[in-house]
Amino acid sequence: MNNNNLKNMDLPGELGSLSVYQCEQLCREIRKNIIDTVLKNGGHLASNLGTVELTVAIHRVFHSPADKIVWDVGHQTYTHKLLTGRYESFSTLRKEDGLSGFCRPEESEHDAFISGHSSTAISAAFGYAEAMRLNGDNHHAVAVIGDGAFTGGLAYEGLNNAGKSKDNIIVILNHNDMSISKNVGAFARYLTSIRGNSAYLDTKKKVEKILNDTPVVGEPIKRFIVSAKSALKSVLYHSTMFEDMGFVYLGPIDGHNIAEIEETLRAAKKLRCPVFVHVNTVKGKGFRPAEINPGAFHSIPASGYNKRNPDNRVTDSFSETFGKKLCALADDDKRICAITASMKYATGLEHFAVSHPERFFDVGIAEQHAVTFAAGLSKGGKLPVFAVYSSFLQRSYDQLIHDASTDNEHIVLGIDHSGFVGGDGETHQGLFDVPMLMTIPNTTIYSPSTYAELELCLESALYSTEGIAAVRYPKGTESDTIGIDDTDSYLLTRNGSRCLAISYGRIVHNLYSAAGTDIDVLKLVKIFPVDEAVTELCMDYSEIYFFEESSRTGGIGEHLMSRLYENGYKGSFVITGVKGHVKQASVQRCMEKYFLDEESMKYILQSGSEIIAT
Amino acid sequence: MNNNNLKNMDLPGELGSLSVYQCEQLCREIRKNIIDTVLKNGGHLASNLGTVELTVAIHRVFHSPADKIVWDVGHQTYTHKLLTGRYESFSTLRKEDGLSGFCRPEESEHDAFISGHSSTAISAAFGYAEAMRLNGDNHHAVAVIGDGAFTGGLAYEGLNNAGKSKDNIIVILNHNDMSISKNVGAFARYLTSIRGNSAYLDTKKKVEKILNDTPVVGEPIKRFIVSAKSALKSVLYHSTMFEDMGFVYLGPIDGHNIAEIEETLRAAKKLRCPVFVHVNTVKGKGFRPAEINPGAFHSIPASGYNKRNPDNRVTDSFSETFGKKLCALADDDKRICAITASMKYATGLEHFAVSHPERFFDVGIAEQHAVTFAAGLSKGGKLPVFAVYSSFLQRSYDQLIHDASTDNEHIVLGIDHSGFVGGDGETHQGLFDVPMLMTIPNTTIYSPSTYAELELCLESALYSTEGIAAVRYPKGTESDTIGIDDTDSYLLTRNGSRCLAISYGRIVHNLYSAAGTDIDVLKLVKIFPVDEAVTELCMDYSEIYFFEESSRTGGIGEHLMSRLYENGYKGSFVITGVKGHVKQASVQRCMEKYFLDEESMKYILQSGSEIIAT
Repeated sequence: MNNNNLKNMDLPGELGSLSVYQCEQLCREIRKNIIDTVLKNGGHLASNLGTVELTVAIHRVFHSPADKIVWDVGHQTYTHKLLTGRYESFSTLRKEDGLSGFCRPEESEHDAFISGHSSTAISAAFGYAEAMRLNGDNHHAVAVIGDGAFTGGLAYEGLNNAGKSKDNIIVILNHNDMSISKNVGAFARYLTSIRGNSAYLDTKKKVEKILNDTPVVGEPIKRFIVSAKSALKSVLYHSTMFEDMGFVYLGPIDGHNIAEIEETLRAAKKLRCPVFVHVNTVKGKGFRPAEINPGAFHSIPASGYNKRNPDNRVTDSFSETFGKKLCALADDDKRICAITASMKYATGLEHFAVSHPERFFDVGIAEQHAVTFAAGLSKGGKLPVFAVYSSFLQRSYDQLIHDASTDNEHIVLGIDHSGFVGGDGETHQGLFDVPMLMTIPNTTIYSPSTYAELELCLESALYSTEGIAAVRYPKGTESDTIGIDDTDSYLLTRNGSRCLAISYGRIVHNLYSAAGTDIDVLKLVKIFPVDEAVTELCMDYSEIYFFEESSRTGGIGEHLMSRLYENGYKGSFVITGVKGHVKQASVQRCMEKYFLDEESMKYILQSGSEIIAT
Repeated sequence: MNNNNLKNMDLPGELGSLSVYQCEQLCREIRKNIIDTVLKNGGHLASNLGTVELTVAIHRVFHSPADKIVWDVGHQTYTHKLLTGRYESFSTLRKEDGLSGFCRPEESEHDAFISGHSSTAISAAFGYAEAMRLNGDNHHAVAVIGDGAFTGGLAYEGLNNAGKSKDNIIVILNHNDMSISKNVGAFARYLTSIRGNSAYLDTKKKVEKILNDTPVVGEPIKRFIVSAKSALKSVLYHSTMFEDMGFVYLGPIDGHNIAEIEETLRAAKKLRCPVFVHVNTVKGKGFRPAEINPGAFHSIPASGYNKRNPDNRVTDSFSETFGKKLCALADDDKRICAITASMKYATGLEHFAVSHPERFFDVGIAEQHAVTFAAGLSKGGKLPVFAVYSSFLQRSYDQLIHDASTDNEHIVLGIDHSGFVGGDGETHQGLFDVPMLMTIPNTTIYSPSTYAELELCLESALYSTEGIAAVRYPKGTESDTIGIDDTDSYLLTRNGSRCLAISYGRIVHNLYSAAGTDIDVLKLVKIFPVDEAVTELCMDYSEIYFFEESSRTGGIGEHLMSRLYENGYKGSFVITGVKGHVKQASVQRCMEKYFLDEESMKYILQSGSEIIAT
């Protein structure tokens, strides 16, 4: 055993031959690798440092890929990747054509299920477990899920279904008392109550033993003991919520003690029924700055850890602009409420949380609830604003239609990370919010391209729009912009051309550069519903080029195009949009790949036709 | 007090002045009204008969609309409607321009929140409760929710958030041990375990009393008592899952004993904190056939109760065709698994459940889990088929994108009730599945128009399609059809015209009649992705008319149109589709209102332009 175990060992197979001491050595090597790589490539740090020992223990007890290990969210699987044949490629983490920062089955047979969104693991693992049962396969399905993910209803749906089975399914709770922000809700409080009580199981056993051993003397005492015994029985049966849900509960155990984890997992494996293993871990374990401030090290940018700003906070971004503006508006308007699904920092709402704590709601990773709750607040006379990443808003589709739109409730959505997101890859791309929202009656969508426009749009969404008012904006910072006026509606730049180029969102900056002074440019900011004035002005052109950093199918381009031709438009109309799932790469590279960068736009405008990807 | 209380009393205000005996009389009158109306108009019977006493008690204890009563699903609110000024209009239930079969705020100030989908009430009521807190309003928010709805993750998300508050929120569990089909899952088993134990609270109190009263004699006994006492304390604190979630738990109580319900609700009201009230009710109470077979009386058609078929079963429908075909295919293919979200009968899966119980999964009202679980089954080598109503599939949007599409998992969706649904109205219309699915990469959509086509499409979805394969079909029976060939692709009927009319789904029958032999007709069955051959053949025409019984915005029409014009099509293209939310009316009337009936189609084809609704 030397210092290059990750490189030289045959993993995960050889893991089983190591002593506990050697495992601990290996864990140190893993931690070093993770810290070095994440500080260079960006990625999730605190969560990965918390699951090193747990992952080693899991791969010693279970035999992937025959046993199916399903990681919830999947951003804590760097150790898993290092142990399953991806040591050499680990330096490509989150880079174009490199390793995904999440689980991706096409990357390795050890990645049992795609993951990037929260709370899916129990349902997916239970699917595996039932398939195994039907196939007569005695292996195990193992879901590893954080306490934060347990605030999502899907986790509960999975538990409710798996718990009634007799399958070999093991749910491992990685309990670090945090989701992305500090965990919230009654369930978190409950978990903490049993987490704190490490003597929980011991006490049960002790009491049982005492009851069996105590000699029964005298009638009143006997009566008492019989009463207590029967009451205790019901306790022992219904001792945790997980036992109520049909699982054998084991824990809580120390998630950084490999021997203890292994012993418990081996016990769980023998039981051959649904087992819930409660593991306490420390986020950021082994890297002091991340242990002290795990929120700041949840996800760090590719530029790496900023030593001069130990808070690791971004101060200039669309998210920050949104958060600060909302906070300022709320100073003057007591009706404004802010809602986040466990992403207070990432969506810029921490200012609001500090200034208006009584009107700030972190609902957990519960996007469904967030929307229905917002509709309830609106009914009660409030102005609710739900700030959420585009790809996570997908969870609210039915609530938007049923709970908000049907009764034309006024709620505002602040949709962050719309468009390409870079290193997070396909599960996090914000490419569906536009077609998703367009189909929902009583919905207005704004897509600002600068900070100033974002502020304008937020005000319009709050005060000049009925029903669902969505303001969508990209990840990151605004571009160095050409001096174009800000608006919450649309802006036509006339260059005297018969050719019109249209776009919305941040790529309008590429378009202005590409169009130069040869072609007229229409910037859409209120993108849906399409204004009559917009369709009318389009009728004057003989060539129209539409660019969208969003799904092409079912998008604004197709919709506007159909409106124009129905009005008798006779010219050409060429749409450039995004097709299919978009893999990780820098935002600029994604733009190039989907022909939304300045150069591609120039080519399209000059050649007069769409570029068909080869 | 006479026999016309509903007509003559000033309700709900005067309810408070009645004696319990008079209330019981009133309940009899209410039951009679409900039975008479539902047997005539169709609607939900069993659930409404189960909540008569509960509703009367709620309106005696709480003061709507100042107190906000939020009904989950809302199909059990007929008593509520009769008590809140809608006695006179009750005969219009579920008819065009009549009373909604669900809660609809625009209908009455007493309908606090829209409802038609399950598991939303706690989140909505909590929104009200927080708004009340911020407004300094001391009234109560009350959510009334069935045990079936508790299988949906949204209910848990709501509980998790409400339970940590200090608000005046009361959750009333209407526990009838049934959702639409027999309730399933670990949580249901848990509820039943506490339902059966009516002495639950008594025992707690008794044990507590004994502990306090027992004299402590001798050291060993003392040690024992101290141990037991501390263990019991934790029991008393964590005695039900609801207490774990931060609620005071009261119950279970008899849901047909007005005095007992009232007493408990008054106690709950005084507590001024989150309270969970567990009420046992009997579905179908007071109507023998419905008590014996509540599943058959969950929802009955407008044709009324069929005395000759006490099962009240439909034997000829798209649902039945789907269910029987799937069952037959599963006889030969052991990989096929069937999944329902608590709608075994309504989706025709009861045949499968009987023939292949080990491969049949009723997951509860958990559409999110259904899709993620299906993706897991697929990973495990199975062929999962999820049968679901169109409007309920909206809950699975993110799971379809993230858990199925991203990794190109092969799962089949049987989408029932696509298109207009008649009396159930706006919350149940199947108008969004097409634009929703079109935006999801790796998705194929079939929209058969006859039983034979449904069978063909199901086979194609299972065996000739990759990724997500959706087969969508309408509520009810197939039309008396003109003799047109069945296909799983498309069918062009040439009449030598330069004008082409295109449609899909059941309305193609209207189109064939409307077009006669003057116009060419293209029936699409595989509607997405659009075949190259389809776009090519369209290029030959100078006028195209597209009809869809689905959302016009973001739909197939707009998509096909954009494909054609990009290919250089020079003719006209007129789309007729559905805009906005569609209110209850017969399916035929809905077709007329949205210009999709034969007469409107004729007019459009002859006049050459879309009809703009006035």
